[in-house]
Amino acid sequence: MADQAFVTLATNDNYARGAMVLGKSLRKHNTTKKLVALIGPQVSEPSQSVLKRIYDEVRVVDVLDSGDTAHLAMMKRPELGVTFTKLHCWTLTHYSKCVFMDADTMVLSNIDELFDREELSAAPDPGWPDCFNSGVFVFRPSVETHGKLLQYCTEHGSFDGGDQGILNGFFSNWATADISKHLPFIYNLSSIAIYTYLPAFKQYGGNAKVVHFLGKTKPWDYTFDPKTKQISGSEQDAATHPTFLLNWWTLYSGDVVPMLHEEYGEQPFHSG
Amino acid sequence: MADQAFVTLATNDNYARGAMVLGKSLRKHNTTKKLVALIGPQVSEPSQSVLKRIYDEVRVVDVLDSGDTAHLAMMKRPELGVTFTKLHCWTLTHYSKCVFMDADTMVLSNIDELFDREELSAAPDPGWPDCFNSGVFVFRPSVETHGKLLQYCTEHGSFDGGDQGILNGFFSNWATADISKHLPFIYNLSSIAIYTYLPAFKQYGGNAKVVHFLGKTKPWDYTFDPKTKQISGSEQDAATHPTFLLNWWTLYSGDVVPMLHEEYGEQPFHSG
Ligand SMILES: O=c1ccn([C@@H]2O[C@H](COP(=O)(O)OP(=O)(O)O)[C@@H](O)[C@H]2O)c(=O)[nH]1
Ligand SMILES: O=c1ccn([C@@H]2O[C@H](COP(=O)(O)OP(=O)(O)O)[C@@H](O)[C@H]2O)c(=O)[nH]1
Ligand SMILES: [Mn+2]
Ligand SMILES: [Mn+2]
Repeated sequence: MADQAFVTLATNDNYARGAMVLGKSLRKHNTTKKLVALIGPQVSEPSQSVLKRIYDEVRVVDVLDSGDTAHLAMMKRPELGVTFTKLHCWTLTHYSKCVFMDADTMVLSNIDELFDREELSAAPDPGWPDCFNSGVFVFRPSVETHGKLLQYCTEHGSFDGGDQGILNGFFSNWATADISKHLPFIYNLSSIAIYTYLPAFKQYGGNAKVVHFLGKTKPWDYTFDPKTKQISGSEQDAATHPTFLLNWWTLYSGDVVPMLHEEYGEQPFHSG
Repeated sequence: MADQAFVTLATNDNYARGAMVLGKSLRKHNTTKKLVALIGPQVSEPSQSVLKRIYDEVRVVDVLDSGDTAHLAMMKRPELGVTFTKLHCWTLTHYSKCVFMDADTMVLSNIDELFDREELSAAPDPGWPDCFNSGVFVFRPSVETHGKLLQYCTEHGSFDGGDQGILNGFFSNWATADISKHLPFIYNLSSIAIYTYLPAFKQYGGNAKVVHFLGKTKPWDYTFDPKTKQISGSEQDAATHPTFLLNWWTLYSGDVVPMLHEEYGEQPFHSG
């Protein structure tokens, strides 16, 4: 459907590389939805060009420049910079329904069925499971909701300093109100869950549909040798399941790096 | 109500100490429900005597001795010893509804409202949040359900080697079927959640009703100096929130140790 879209966010070239892999993974699994990338003004020209080849719509969001309520909210809560950019997704009112996905996620199969869900649907956060993880969520763009979210930000701030704290504060009955708004955990399988409860991962992880490289070390922080298919460069190697990380790097080096080379030409870019 | 009970389990003297603290914590908060302890035959006489002073009913469960279907099931899956003892709680049919609580839990307020819930209600497990944690759950004793659980054990085993794997396999629609069967996480706040998502703990942890000392190091593995109120003796000190651990030790040293001294007399017991 043309009025439904997957939406992601990248405020810099590193997260842009994540957005490229995410977009490619959605295309590979034949999504019928539109793909939208919100980007910050720091994303370089060549990276923007690559994003435009993968995404239907690439929209630069500069909250600081906007001069509207978002800007005013930002002035009151300057610590929530990226969060305000993420909340901007509610203004995409040319779509009736969207699924937001963090730039550090990747799909492993077609997940268009998520559009059957209502706002706000999300998967539980491992760690504090009465909170939802804000790396994957279904929402309905609405200027009114966007305004209320900005107001919530200025009045309450974020208990965790990020968008997850805001969104859980705002959609505060998620844990108790409606089971259909609980996405199965396999739609936002964070690497952290793999080592905290390995037997459950072995039992259910084979059905994973979305992997989320949550936490400090992102896929692009590793290095990868395409010839030997070896990943290295982090002390935390054991933390993320090597298969998922390899999936990410295979897609990145096979499908994204060639496009980056074309766009960057002789300019250097950091390929991993 | 006389036909409703809190039920716990202790197969040895260490877990029995946990059961004593749990029972005392329920009494302190004026529960109107009966208290039942299932114990293994290894629990010493003096510990049994203390349990009998705290609990309304102390029942020795020896699956190996039973000669019934539980025994047969156990023969096929000998690795699930403690699990079979835990499943025995479904045979307490002189109660219409029960709340099972691990011996490593402690209540921080009256939680009798849990009896408004239906089988099988439980809180999500941090780590793999589409599984419930089996440290606190509402159930209805039933010989029929008990039989089905034993059959499930023999046919499928446990994906995690314990009761949590069995119960999640058996009550497999918990994640998707009925939001009222999702107990709020504050009814089974495991220490692991505190350090994996500290801001959420700071935001919501103040409402904790049940703390669960999940994991390898149990409260009774520490040592405590009642005079200085100092806890020591584990490398993992930072892992469990000191306040909860101090609560446990305060109740243990103040209310339980005197009873142990009376029952053990001159015999030595390990007070911590
Ligand atoms: O400097 C940043 C930080 C975050 N993000 C976006 O915000 C999301 C959430 O941040 P992150 O994934 O790093 O948080 P985590 O999932 O590890 O908690 C990212 O996936 C990006 O889409 C971004 O564009 N630039
Ligand atoms: O040797 C044992 C192990 C476990 N248990 C009982 O089974 C519960 C579950 O085990 P535990 O709490 O150690 O597991 P965790 O919650 O750490 O996963 C305990 O609280 C006890 O009630 C027991 O009686 N003896
Ligand atoms: Mn993320
Ligand atoms: Mn336990």
